[in-house]
Amino acid sequence: MSLDAVLSRIDADLPNATERLFDLLRVPSISTDPKYAPECRRAAEWLVQDLTSMGVDASLRETPKHPMVVGHVDGDGPHVLFYGHYDVQPVDPLELWDRDPFDPAMEDTDKGRVIRARGASDDKGQLMTFIEACRAFHAETGRMPCRITFFLEGEEESGSPSLVPFLKENAEELKADVALICDTGLFDAETPAIVTMLRGLLGEEITITGATKDLHSGFFGGAAMNPIRVLTRILGGLHDESGRVVVPGFYDGVPDLDPGLRQQWEGLGFDHAAFLGGVGLATPAGEQDRTPLEMIWSRPTGEINGIIGGYTGDGFKTVLPSRASAKVSFRLVGEQDPHAIRESFRDWVRTQVPEDCKVEFEAHGASPASVMATDHPAFEQARQALSLEWPQEAAYVGAGGSIPVAGYFKSILDMDAMLIGFAKEDDQIHSPNEKYDLESFHRGIRSWARILDALT
Amino acid sequence: MSLDAVLSRIDADLPNATERLFDLLRVPSISTDPKYAPECRRAAEWLVQDLTSMGVDASLRETPKHPMVVGHVDGDGPHVLFYGHYDVQPVDPLELWDRDPFDPAMEDTDKGRVIRARGASDDKGQLMTFIEACRAFHAETGRMPCRITFFLEGEEESGSPSLVPFLKENAEELKADVALICDTGLFDAETPAIVTMLRGLLGEEITITGATKDLHSGFFGGAAMNPIRVLTRILGGLHDESGRVVVPGFYDGVPDLDPGLRQQWEGLGFDHAAFLGGVGLATPAGEQDRTPLEMIWSRPTGEINGIIGGYTGDGFKTVLPSRASAKVSFRLVGEQDPHAIRESFRDWVRTQVPEDCKVEFEAHGASPASVMATDHPAFEQARQALSLEWPQEAAYVGAGGSIPVAGYFKSILDMDAMLIGFAKEDDQIHSPNEKYDLESFHRGIRSWARILDALT
Repeated sequence: MSLDAVLSRIDADLPNATERLFDLLRVPSISTDPKYAPECRRAAEWLVQDLTSMGVDASLRETPKHPMVVGHVDGDGPHVLFYGHYDVQPVDPLELWDRDPFDPAMEDTDKGRVIRARGASDDKGQLMTFIEACRAFHAETGRMPCRITFFLEGEEESGSPSLVPFLKENAEELKADVALICDTGLFDAETPAIVTMLRGLLGEEITITGATKDLHSGFFGGAAMNPIRVLTRILGGLHDESGRVVVPGFYDGVPDLDPGLRQQWEGLGFDHAAFLGGVGLATPAGEQDRTPLEMIWSRPTGEINGIIGGYTGDGFKTVLPSRASAKVSFRLVGEQDPHAIRESFRDWVRTQVPEDCKVEFEAHGASPASVMATDHPAFEQARQALSLEWPQEAAYVGAGGSIPVAGYFKSILDMDAMLIGFAKEDDQIHSPNEKYDLESFHRGIRSWARILDALT
Repeated sequence: MSLDAVLSRIDADLPNATERLFDLLRVPSISTDPKYAPECRRAAEWLVQDLTSMGVDASLRETPKHPMVVGHVDGDGPHVLFYGHYDVQPVDPLELWDRDPFDPAMEDTDKGRVIRARGASDDKGQLMTFIEACRAFHAETGRMPCRITFFLEGEEESGSPSLVPFLKENAEELKADVALICDTGLFDAETPAIVTMLRGLLGEEITITGATKDLHSGFFGGAAMNPIRVLTRILGGLHDESGRVVVPGFYDGVPDLDPGLRQQWEGLGFDHAAFLGGVGLATPAGEQDRTPLEMIWSRPTGEINGIIGGYTGDGFKTVLPSRASAKVSFRLVGEQDPHAIRESFRDWVRTQVPEDCKVEFEAHGASPASVMATDHPAFEQARQALSLEWPQEAAYVGAGGSIPVAGYFKSILDMDAMLIGFAKEDDQIHSPNEKYDLESFHRGIRSWARILDALT
């Protein structure tokens, strides 16, 4: 049976697969910082070359920002579209990394071998699990197990500005029977998961400006309005005492959790104390009448992701700054309308800005939540294939993070998506010392081989 | 009469005096940033050499941080101690400067010629007015007009950590009949001023720490407490709706304004609208039942001078940071006790920190307010001398800024201080494009010559 041969080949080729991943990890493809644009292009070119080497008709496709990689290869059975992203998060604060984030290394840890680098888990390691599975099929059988379209993005970590226009312009080319997205995690170290609920994301940057220049607090302190005072007063009131976001209309379209799903989640035995305890916390910070699993999977949030104003260097400076700014994001669920919430948030801020200050807003992406149609047969085929590779049966779960592309595949291409990934909760994605377990990488490749075989 | 000869010499020597000031301005003696420590020393050495050249027995005196400059020169009449500081504020944001802050230049503007550089006004230009007056006396008469002790500090812009120990250790050497401090401004372009009320200053840095590492808001958003949310909630509540600081006991020791002084201040014709309008503001931001002049001269304040947390670079990053911090300062008046307020502020913060976060405090200086004893005869002698040099009669005024050394001269050396300076309100001290009017420099030198002559 060819699947067994493919799996054996995957096992034997693991050292080479790891070297290939290291090559990709060495490219600092930080999409949010314009100065790394050439590196994003370099990562895209690397992928085009790699896909071409296994018989895929792959090319780099220009966008106004970072290029897409699109590849096609024929095969029997259903047509699947695979999505991953080759861009990575910024690495600051760099001083908290134990090594160069772009000099990947294999490290032995208490929990086994890990691949340490920015992007090792999110998302280069994950996307390479699928590519390596395809490589093994191609090498072993001379062909792919089904017709595959590869679609690799370079703007996922910076709001995907080119994604929707690209999907619309290339809808016919990209439409497949089902999409496979590898950018999520295992439920726990033994239990694989298919994500069926994804939160949306709305990003806003607020800048409050007061005086026309920085002032000396000795001359003006007391008389001149301080933009940091205005900004902290507004943002300090974003949540009420019960942890709810106070922006008018924010909870419009937030559904009650389906009782069946609630029961299934309770059955997962999620350890709330361990979840928070693992990062030094103990008290769930969200709406006080919800469980932590609801807080992260099925409830919306408001978060301040960054704030800056005035003097922030060593020592002290008695300045009244002329401006202060913050980056704020909202995780969205159900039918919450990101555009309506953006307008409501802006109005809510504006009414609190005193007449001596002005406020400016910058939009950073707006995507609604997604809920998958799990009655498509591919879901159950994939769930059973995953269950064969891992110690525990695969589960349908929610995810707190936003993977807007899943929603766009549905709304623009009318295509369901299966979100399957092998990241672990201690992978430190978006943080210093990001890693990907070698087990995630190895079993991840094998999982895709099993899934591709099951779909055909 | 020798004063006329000294004044003529000052006029003739102005180009050389300006060149000397430029030499001192070229030294980037930023005291708050440890990497500029060698430059602070270089500025101190320059002053030692300059004082020595005019017959002063000057030397550099070590402290744990930046050195003091102390010089003695004999003369008849009273013994005065002159104080100034050779350190300067940081220059960020550097991109808002029209030229290198440490490459001084003479510029013609609508309002006359100005010397443009960091420290041109605060305080290198100001301290050199006194030194140039002494130089002219020495050159013209072969001696100083009175016995003078020069005392030049290099830590004024970074909380003066060495000042009190140094004053205590060298009290006998530094004690004089009266102190002259040149670090304040004119009341307006035509009206010189002697400051008799100075606000104190209390600086605090707060750091809120939540999780043990930065978290991804997709995985943890909603469940994990965000330190920026905690910090903004606390600082956003520092003032009540009427602009008063809510820290318990904060207003203990704040005196009512003396009715006579209030009347005098009302007579100054201070243009509140122009004061705020000059920096693009219109609405006094302090306690709503006070005038702007009271807000800046005789009322205490609470200000947030800096805040930082999370991702603050280009683009967006959906991080939940593990920490956020802010620099907060309080301007103090009357008998307010900085140490009691520090403790009250810390307690007030602590009670608002949720159990999943911890708070750390760092002290950045604590000095009480000063009120001068204007019945010392030197005050009226100086006021009359100043009135001869400038178009309008000199006034006794308050000052919103903190010059703690004046208080220490009183409490440690039992010596009254006269605060006389020639800065203008548009000098942009502590801000980009700082300048000092050539008129301030020239008339400032002449003013000190007149004052020294009047004191003898």
